[in-house]
Amino acid sequence: MNAAEDSSTRGLQSIALDPDRLFPAEPSVRGIARELHALVAELPILSPHGHVPAQVLLENSPFEDPASLLISPDHYVTRLIHASGVDLAELGVGGASAEPREIWRKFCAAWPLFDGTASGYWLRSELVELFGVDDELIDAEHADPIFDQLVAALKTPAFLPRALFDSFRIEVLATTDDPLDSLDAHRALAADPSFTGRVIPTFRPDRYLNAATPGFAERVDRLISEAGEGVAGYQGYLRALQNRRAYFIQHGAVSADHGVRTPRTLKLEQAEAARLFEAAMRGDLSPQERDAFEAQMIYQMARMSVADGLVMTVHPGSFRDHHTPSFERFGPDTGHDIPVPVSYTEGLRPLLNDFGDSPGFQLLLFTLDETVFSRELAPLAGFYPAVYLGAPWWFLDAPDAMLRFRSAVTETAGFSRSAGFVDDTRAFCSIPARHDASRRVEAAFLARLVAEKRLRGDRAAEIIVDLVDGAPRRAFKLGAFKSGAFEPSAFELGEGSVR
Amino acid sequence: MNAAEDSSTRGLQSIALDPDRLFPAEPSVRGIARELHALVAELPILSPHGHVPAQVLLENSPFEDPASLLISPDHYVTRLIHASGVDLAELGVGGASAEPREIWRKFCAAWPLFDGTASGYWLRSELVELFGVDDELIDAEHADPIFDQLVAALKTPAFLPRALFDSFRIEVLATTDDPLDSLDAHRALAADPSFTGRVIPTFRPDRYLNAATPGFAERVDRLISEAGEGVAGYQGYLRALQNRRAYFIQHGAVSADHGVRTPRTLKLEQAEAARLFEAAMRGDLSPQERDAFEAQMIYQMARMSVADGLVMTVHPGSFRDHHTPSFERFGPDTGHDIPVPVSYTEGLRPLLNDFGDSPGFQLLLFTLDETVFSRELAPLAGFYPAVYLGAPWWFLDAPDAMLRFRSAVTETAGFSRSAGFVDDTRAFCSIPARHDASRRVEAAFLARLVAEKRLRGDRAAEIIVDLVDGAPRRAFKLGAFKSGAFEPSAFELGEGSVR
Amino acid sequence: MNAAEDSSTRGLQSIALDPDRLFPAEPSVRGIARELHALVAELPILSPHGHVPAQVLLENSPFEDPASLLISPDHYVTRLIHASGVDLAELGVGGASAEPREIWRKFCAAWPLFDGTASGYWLRSELVELFGVDDELIDAEHADPIFDQLVAALKTPAFLPRALFDSFRIEVLATTDDPLDSLDAHRALAADPSFTGRVIPTFRPDRYLNAATPGFAERVDRLISEAGEGVAGYQGYLRALQNRRAYFIQHGAVSADHGVRTPRTLKLEQAEAARLFEAAMRGDLSPQERDAFEAQMIYQMARMSVADGLVMTVHPGSFRDHHTPSFERFGPDTGHDIPVPVSYTEGLRPLLNDFGDSPGFQLLLFTLDETVFSRELAPLAGFYPAVYLGAPWWFLDAPDAMLRFRSAVTETAGFSRSAGFVDDTRAFCSIPARHDASRRVEAAFLARLVAEKRLRGDRAAEIIVDLVDGAPRRAFKLGAFKSGAFEPSAFELGEGSVR
Repeated sequence: MNAAEDSSTRGLQSIALDPDRLFPAEPSVRGIARELHALVAELPILSPHGHVPAQVLLENSPFEDPASLLISPDHYVTRLIHASGVDLAELGVGGASAEPREIWRKFCAAWPLFDGTASGYWLRSELVELFGVDDELIDAEHADPIFDQLVAALKTPAFLPRALFDSFRIEVLATTDDPLDSLDAHRALAADPSFTGRVIPTFRPDRYLNAATPGFAERVDRLISEAGEGVAGYQGYLRALQNRRAYFIQHGAVSADHGVRTPRTLKLEQAEAARLFEAAMRGDLSPQERDAFEAQMIYQMARMSVADGLVMTVHPGSFRDHHTPSFERFGPDTGHDIPVPVSYTEGLRPLLNDFGDSPGFQLLLFTLDETVFSRELAPLAGFYPAVYLGAPWWFLDAPDAMLRFRSAVTETAGFSRSAGFVDDTRAFCSIPARHDASRRVEAAFLARLVAEKRLRGDRAAEIIVDLVDGAPRRAFKLGAFKSGAFEPSAFELGEGSVR
Repeated sequence: MNAAEDSSTRGLQSIALDPDRLFPAEPSVRGIARELHALVAELPILSPHGHVPAQVLLENSPFEDPASLLISPDHYVTRLIHASGVDLAELGVGGASAEPREIWRKFCAAWPLFDGTASGYWLRSELVELFGVDDELIDAEHADPIFDQLVAALKTPAFLPRALFDSFRIEVLATTDDPLDSLDAHRALAADPSFTGRVIPTFRPDRYLNAATPGFAERVDRLISEAGEGVAGYQGYLRALQNRRAYFIQHGAVSADHGVRTPRTLKLEQAEAARLFEAAMRGDLSPQERDAFEAQMIYQMARMSVADGLVMTVHPGSFRDHHTPSFERFGPDTGHDIPVPVSYTEGLRPLLNDFGDSPGFQLLLFTLDETVFSRELAPLAGFYPAVYLGAPWWFLDAPDAMLRFRSAVTETAGFSRSAGFVDDTRAFCSIPARHDASRRVEAAFLARLVAEKRLRGDRAAEIIVDLVDGAPRRAFKLGAFKSGAFEPSAFELGEGSVR
Repeated sequence: MNAAEDSSTRGLQSIALDPDRLFPAEPSVRGIARELHALVAELPILSPHGHVPAQVLLENSPFEDPASLLISPDHYVTRLIHASGVDLAELGVGGASAEPREIWRKFCAAWPLFDGTASGYWLRSELVELFGVDDELIDAEHADPIFDQLVAALKTPAFLPRALFDSFRIEVLATTDDPLDSLDAHRALAADPSFTGRVIPTFRPDRYLNAATPGFAERVDRLISEAGEGVAGYQGYLRALQNRRAYFIQHGAVSADHGVRTPRTLKLEQAEAARLFEAAMRGDLSPQERDAFEAQMIYQMARMSVADGLVMTVHPGSFRDHHTPSFERFGPDTGHDIPVPVSYTEGLRPLLNDFGDSPGFQLLLFTLDETVFSRELAPLAGFYPAVYLGAPWWFLDAPDAMLRFRSAVTETAGFSRSAGFVDDTRAFCSIPARHDASRRVEAAFLARLVAEKRLRGDRAAEIIVDLVDGAPRRAFKLGAFKSGAFEPSAFELGEGSVR
């Protein structure tokens, strides 16, 4: 049975295709939101932070099947099915072998779990818009025909990774990479005249800075030996990090990302830093010293960013691998990273005191703890030239949470301190839905301000274009819009002076 | 003067009778909310967690007077009158002697204090709907005639506890009980052929687990001697707890409740646990050790729940008896329990690592600290099969707070992880108003999602029936709906597999 | 070019003049909000906490220029321009010399930064309503003509401080003063028959209580020698504080204000308090002891308030002078005070246990951390007769934040525990806009409750009048409305009994 046909026969339209989705119901606000969204609906996608491997685009092989494309690697999806009592192994998590069709059946049976969730919104959008599935038929009974429909689609040229990249209108896609990654895939992609997209690496050194991660000493040894220019010890370590950052920059990187437990920074005397480093290499740090070492290395990363220009993004506050049995069976990133309370004000002070107004230094702060939106992030971004507000992240990358974010930060920091949207995803096919959702929510928020006479309509129009296009370009130093169709917005500032 | 007549003369209708109360004003959303609410308005009340004594229903004596029924025992009510400067003694709190009519006069004079509060909403609803009072006349001047009107009503058969139980359409009512309670009242009620309601006990062992409570050692001694089967010490203590849980289960209990200061758990070696127990019995624990002992006992309670199937509910984060002088004069539960910040992520980890996916284990988490809704509770419930989201509790059991709860948790955890509503009240007459308010708010929230094209209307209809009826049955293991009129919802899952 | 003319030519109206600004878009709610706002739009301004110097009104000299009036001293404004990369010195911050016209140009160029912010709302309102500026022309190009327009206006008698005071309809204006201030300006103003306004001092002893502030010992020495009546040491210190409070009360003060890092209080034995005092004077306190000393002095301040009747306001949770380089160049209050997490429940317990129901004692709690609204402040204010809810403060004095405040506190504490609005500003010309914004938001919130049938319309009308007029009079003990036009509201309580 062809699900798509069935839908058209019924004459019903999926909510995934409703032109007013995510807009407020009040007609006057909805009307303004519609106009604002229209201004940005067709803008290219800038994805300066995410987790799609460059290899996928380099190889450009057909995606294997719906389960390994849409379900198994997406811990946003598998976690909620698991919560209903399904073993992660049955969903193919962490490389567990499971029949794709079986995984798909479980997903379809679990589809009602996703009602009201951000993942459900994206999945519905992908299935309906991209694959033409009739979402009214996503259930256990219709799992097989939908699976077959998707398998057939994935075999067509239109669903090859590069074709999707183009049809998604992606201008820039950033990957996330180990400091010792050769970046061969990025280099090959850049050299390939048949691929015009921009795929850039991101320097992510967490496992080289956090001495609590298993294998820390061996990993750092390898780092120093590969990139330390023969210098040993702490000096070699710093030099190696610096060198790898430079290598990433040569390969197009614009940012370095830091997934820390707490946003703490520390400025240490060099002797003390070296002492902690040596102890870390011997596995001889107390928990307090390990925290201090990481905090001081985040400070060092900021210092290097000031020097080499890499934008610094910080994603703190996640307790990784909360459920040890699942971690042991399936590895990391399998759905049980759970947020903890965070505070930035005191922790970031050493860093901000030294670099908060350093020219060209840009620090993008993300959070999983909404309490800091109004309490800390907006006040920090509303004073420090270096600080930008990262988009609502992970569990907060969802329509209501995005509205809470805007409501909480705008009255203090306005719109100019926003870093724009990042999809932060490993789910390639969800990228357009995520960006469109973000654009719709920005339109909804701005429309309310216009309707409440808190913002002029013409300014709302400029602001939404800037939030979608200008803000990520500035925050991630991505450079100008290719076609030059848009003027830099009125509040594009820089060089220490207001134009 | 008959207040009810007066109202009809004026031709005015109380807001307590408005069919659209608690629904959003926007007409299209309101229309959807109205339809959704209609689906659940008449469903029976499931009250699986509360504080009405079973004795009330067993004896079935007329309630004495309006003050002792509606005011004195309800610390939600007396606290706000006290804040305006009235001595708690004048309100009959903690058994203080005060003329019911005098108490009632004070309440009526203070009635404007309750505008906008949840308690005011419930009280207005009770007075208008249940007693036919004209709420426009609730003031100092009309206190006496209203008092007389209520006194007269309470003497009629329709206002006997069992008659109210039936007219409220209560299917299940849970009480909260001391582990050594004989449960005679429950047994007698169950054996009484003239009473068809289901009144079930709840195992609440706080004072046997927290060594800081006065009289701890004597209480535990009694526990061990009564239920320890002759075993002494820590082993006898564990066995006695286990036996009393079994006794509660025999008498219909479905859950054990834990009112802890923090949601901390700890897995200790048995020798260390026994050592702490012995020290606790000697009154010889440091504050840190007392906390550790309680944390380890919460872990033990989970272990027992895995074994015996009692649902585990946790209500943390209240600083009990904040105002010592009031505690000394009036005892506990007199309006000055004040919330503190909580975090669940690290504290629950020992418990969840061992039991988070144990078959049949169900852990319902409540909070007074809204910050954990999106940061911790939704992420935990969206991964662990054991974890359910408790309804907004106490100060948060209120329309706006319930909307914030749904907004904060749904995008991560959907609707299937909700435990449904609990009224948690000692105010018997407020039960229908509380449940109806919750149903109206669920309708309001779902209606917005439908209007914003984030949820299909037919699914919203299924979800609201499930939230009101299916969710508490599953979360509290209450069993199926008597009449079988409703199908189990599409996402009623279980047995480790998606049907 | 005259900007005002230009606007009228175009026939456009600024959003700053829209009668429905800040009201919700839904027509029925907006209609109710409009009616409610009309009841309070013309009420006099009560400003019982702020930072305008009395000297300004005493001297009644023309304001010098737009930059020193509107920009340089307002750290809400300069901070956001600084975040865009402008050196604070170029904005005349902290007395830095900069041409007023140059500062104004920078502000106009930066005007788009303020879209959506509270400061932008106030500035637009001031410029359009007060000065008749066409806000569509606020940009780099039109900076000079607008500057000239403002300069011309400021030279007219209508823009003299006292004339503005009258045209703003200010009934009471409180300043914030050092305990050793002579209060000469207040005395002279009170004695001046040509000035009928009420300008009252506020006792702000932070720097005499916090031993970590530079110059603590010298300052306290001076305090004791000036006001200690010859008594030395801790006893002289307490006596001097008491005497200066009395002096402030003689000069019209109604409140004492405390800007503490944390809302912690501590009751110490006198010997221990004296020991800490002596060590503080020697500069010999550990950080823990310094905190303890401050906590015990806040307790002492409450004790004195109970005795002398000064209302106690507490503003905790700001990390002052976060950016050391800016502090060193420009001094305090220059835009980099950043909030930190706070909790009141445990910290205030010693104070509340002893004084929480002391007759006449009034403790107004403010916060920069929204998490305490529902978790702690509403529960505290809903029990303790002494505790009042301070208005949303600083970063939270903004339309959406005010709505979140009302939503978070009302369901627990109702409206009667509110202390009313305070503008807390050093920006004299922004006072009317701030008060009007607050009144509009109150109307918006109440209108929603009425539309959702949670509050009767006639009560909403009484409540908004009380929130704007009655609440600050009660909370700050300001005395009755001059003209007596309004009845005390139905819930004006006091004297330990409900009327």
